Amino acid sequence: MAPKPLDYESLNENVKKSVYAVRGELYLRASELQKEGKKIIFTNVGNPHALGQKPLTFPRQVVALCQAPFLLDDPNVGLLFPADAIARATHYLAMTSGGLGAYSDSRGLPGIRKEVAEFIERRDGYPSDPELIYLTDGASKGVMQILNAIIRNNKDGILVPVPQYPLYSATIALYGGSLVPYYLEESANWGLDIKNLRQSISEARSKGIEVRAMVIINPGNPTGQCLSAANIREILEFCYVENLALLADEVYQQNIYQDERPFVSAKKILMEMGLPISMEVQLVSYHTVSKGYWGECGQRGGYFEMTNLSPETVDEMYKISSISLSPNVPAQIFMGLMVNPPKPGDISFMRFAAESKEILESLRRRARIMTDGFNSCRNVVCNFTEGAMYSFPQIRLPPKAIEAAKRAGKVPDVFYCLKLLEATGISTVPGSGFGQKEGVFHLRTTILPAEQDMPEIMASFKKFNDEFMEQYEHHRGYSRM
Amino acid sequence: MAPKPLDYESLNENVKKSVYAVRGELYLRASELQKEGKKIIFTNVGNPHALGQKPLTFPRQVVALCQAPFLLDDPNVGLLFPADAIARATHYLAMTSGGLGAYSDSRGLPGIRKEVAEFIERRDGYPSDPELIYLTDGASKGVMQILNAIIRNNKDGILVPVPQYPLYSATIALYGGSLVPYYLEESANWGLDIKNLRQSISEARSKGIEVRAMVIINPGNPTGQCLSAANIREILEFCYVENLALLADEVYQQNIYQDERPFVSAKKILMEMGLPISMEVQLVSYHTVSKGYWGECGQRGGYFEMTNLSPETVDEMYKISSISLSPNVPAQIFMGLMVNPPKPGDISFMRFAAESKEILESLRRRARIMTDGFNSCRNVVCNFTEGAMYSFPQIRLPPKAIEAAKRAGKVPDVFYCLKLLEATGISTVPGSGFGQKEGVFHLRTTILPAEQDMPEIMASFKKFNDEFMEQYEHHRGYSRM
Repeated sequence: MAPKPLDYESLNENVKKSVYAVRGELYLRASELQKEGKKIIFTNVGNPHALGQKPLTFPRQVVALCQAPFLLDDPNVGLLFPADAIARATHYLAMTSGGLGAYSDSRGLPGIRKEVAEFIERRDGYPSDPELIYLTDGASKGVMQILNAIIRNNKDGILVPVPQYPLYSATIALYGGSLVPYYLEESANWGLDIKNLRQSISEARSKGIEVRAMVIINPGNPTGQCLSAANIREILEFCYVENLALLADEVYQQNIYQDERPFVSAKKILMEMGLPISMEVQLVSYHTVSKGYWGECGQRGGYFEMTNLSPETVDEMYKISSISLSPNVPAQIFMGLMVNPPKPGDISFMRFAAESKEILESLRRRARIMTDGFNSCRNVVCNFTEGAMYSFPQIRLPPKAIEAAKRAGKVPDVFYCLKLLEATGISTVPGSGFGQKEGVFHLRTTILPAEQDMPEIMASFKKFNDEFMEQYEHHRGYSRM
Repeated sequence: MAPKPLDYESLNENVKKSVYAVRGELYLRASELQKEGKKIIFTNVGNPHALGQKPLTFPRQVVALCQAPFLLDDPNVGLLFPADAIARATHYLAMTSGGLGAYSDSRGLPGIRKEVAEFIERRDGYPSDPELIYLTDGASKGVMQILNAIIRNNKDGILVPVPQYPLYSATIALYGGSLVPYYLEESANWGLDIKNLRQSISEARSKGIEVRAMVIINPGNPTGQCLSAANIREILEFCYVENLALLADEVYQQNIYQDERPFVSAKKILMEMGLPISMEVQLVSYHTVSKGYWGECGQRGGYFEMTNLSPETVDEMYKISSISLSPNVPAQIFMGLMVNPPKPGDISFMRFAAESKEILESLRRRARIMTDGFNSCRNVVCNFTEGAMYSFPQIRLPPKAIEAAKRAGKVPDVFYCLKLLEATGISTVPGSGFGQKEGVFHLRTTILPAEQDMPEIMASFKKFNDEFMEQYEHHRGYSRM
């Protein structure tokens, strides 16, 4: 009998080729174990609230009032909500035409896009145009939209860091393009060496690939590194010379855990470089309400800003946005709140500042606890998490473990991570999901488990790891390389 | 100089080919006029809250509490929220792992998907499996996901009704497939004649197109017709014989304005038909929180249910959903509330029922006022809006108007709609955006303007139309054909 249109064998091959490790085999097995009653520590996704982080109070008050605008007329509203939350809800509702239940403009509410532009101007010291800022259902949707516009066929290449966040590999496969990897240097704290870029692009070209865009993730996911201004400048020069659009994934810009390299945006550096580069390099920059000290992942709010794109392309992006009508409006309000938080003197300022500070300082401590924990384990080495929300330790698997994995039909790091999951309930993502050099193995965890649980989690990890290494090594006392 | 990667000429041709009329030239011109201070009546999108429809109170109370869960511990909460809203918020928060700020499973919260399955079972009288129900950011995103999986290349055809909702034409173009039109019969109240289907499919095949799926919109958008059970049965037989997947867009299932043909789902008819058809025809059915008497468009909540898809395909859809992590969680709660509304005896039941009834009865009256208004105009004929939210009158343009349009470089119905907009502020969508037979012209309006404004809007329309016809006709007294 002929296969049916929605049978597996009849599906679009690009759909089948697309792989998304963050919710792959490990996640599915962890979900099964959870159903069976095992306690699982989900560190596979940067999902802070799922691991106990409390939402910031002020933005939730504002959005609750926007959802229930009839409360604004209730004489008792002041018993439950502070006056500045009430004022802010009124401010945002006035930007909508019909409240949160009405589709907004497909690019997002003009008033919110203006607040985003003002935020970018304050951050970078250069002008930002609200007409070039589009709000999206999370940053991922914006990344997918731009990649869909760039990729025409399988000869179009996109430079992507390795290790990379699998959104990029999955989306490039889905739209039928070619991923062109460039390697980050683990031994240089996951730094980006421009030589590696040049090598990657010439290899790709020798295979007939037209490289059209480059992705940077800063701070890095899964690697946690923060790019220096000098490094970003080199990247922009490279993009200028090679005629590449730059996609700057800057969703972790508020997650910085060291003082040497504060976040600096690609847009700011581009503007600083002056003519001709500042008017020539096409740049799309991404941000989100899901990360930072907000962690409002479930709301699905993001934006992208377009720099040096032609007006016709900006219009095309508008058209594509309009097919699904509008990004969700509540998350647009969260975006407004994120870029325009309470100010000193506001009633809610002290509380907001205290809550934010507590979250960020705790993340900084957890980044340290986790790195130190991994580095205390046999055959494990780990760079410090400078930014973002992840730790990406290298696991030096003994040859016998690699053989055992092969016998089990598993990629070695998947084998290790599955054993870790079964033994401890810690659900990680194998490094192979992000890309890594041949014969080198990693795993990714978030640094998000509650701070008070961290020592126990790291002890549990160490116990598992050291026993695993013991089991698969010939001799006791095999030393770390 | 070489074009840059994000210059218009370098973009993916499918992106450029994709056209979305609902937010096209008319909408853009209307937005301009609004900026200039003109009062615009936006009837281009089915966006009830933007035209003054108030949100239902109970679901907004529940979602506001879910956004601000700290209110649940506040001793004053009972002053602002009824007990059943508090209980329901507690119920939904318990389904999440970390509240609205945490990503859910990429398919949506299991508890909500169970409530959706129970709703479908009550509606149809046949079992529904929560594992085959995926929640989405509005129904559009689900339609796009399935079409992306079906379409492999430009020889893959999708049968789409004409006139159609342009989501389908835009998405098929975006993913590089071929739209295969089948015509609805205006003279038979926009009925679906199976003969037209057979003709469309054989014409497509003669051009080498492999037709893989068929779309039905029931109730119809823009045409408003409700399919009879007998008609759906014919369609399913046709899909069985021709090996087509059926995509059933049923987002207007709660918007019915006559009693002869109540809504009946494709799933229910499929199950009634028994073996082999009930086990063979692949069906994907869509629903949303944006329509019905909810109109919660801005929240972006929807679901699709998969029937007779292989487990491998269901897994592939899970994988694709996971690339953008999860649908927004607040809209998932709205979906739960829509499929599981307050019941008789609940504190909020009377208010909820009264609000719902008022909206639906008013829509029914407005459907009548609008149809009658159009039919009172010179050279305008209009079928009654049996369901959905739109009126789709045929505008019989005199030859001189068609010539004038050509001189202005406009499609004739675009020319008419632009003149209408400039004269009256009524923002409609020209019929050419939905597809229509050669030489026949329409426009689409929603039936959503506030009921008290309707007489004035229709009078304003009639005045414009009748003067337009007067201007472009040779003789006074030219009678309606």
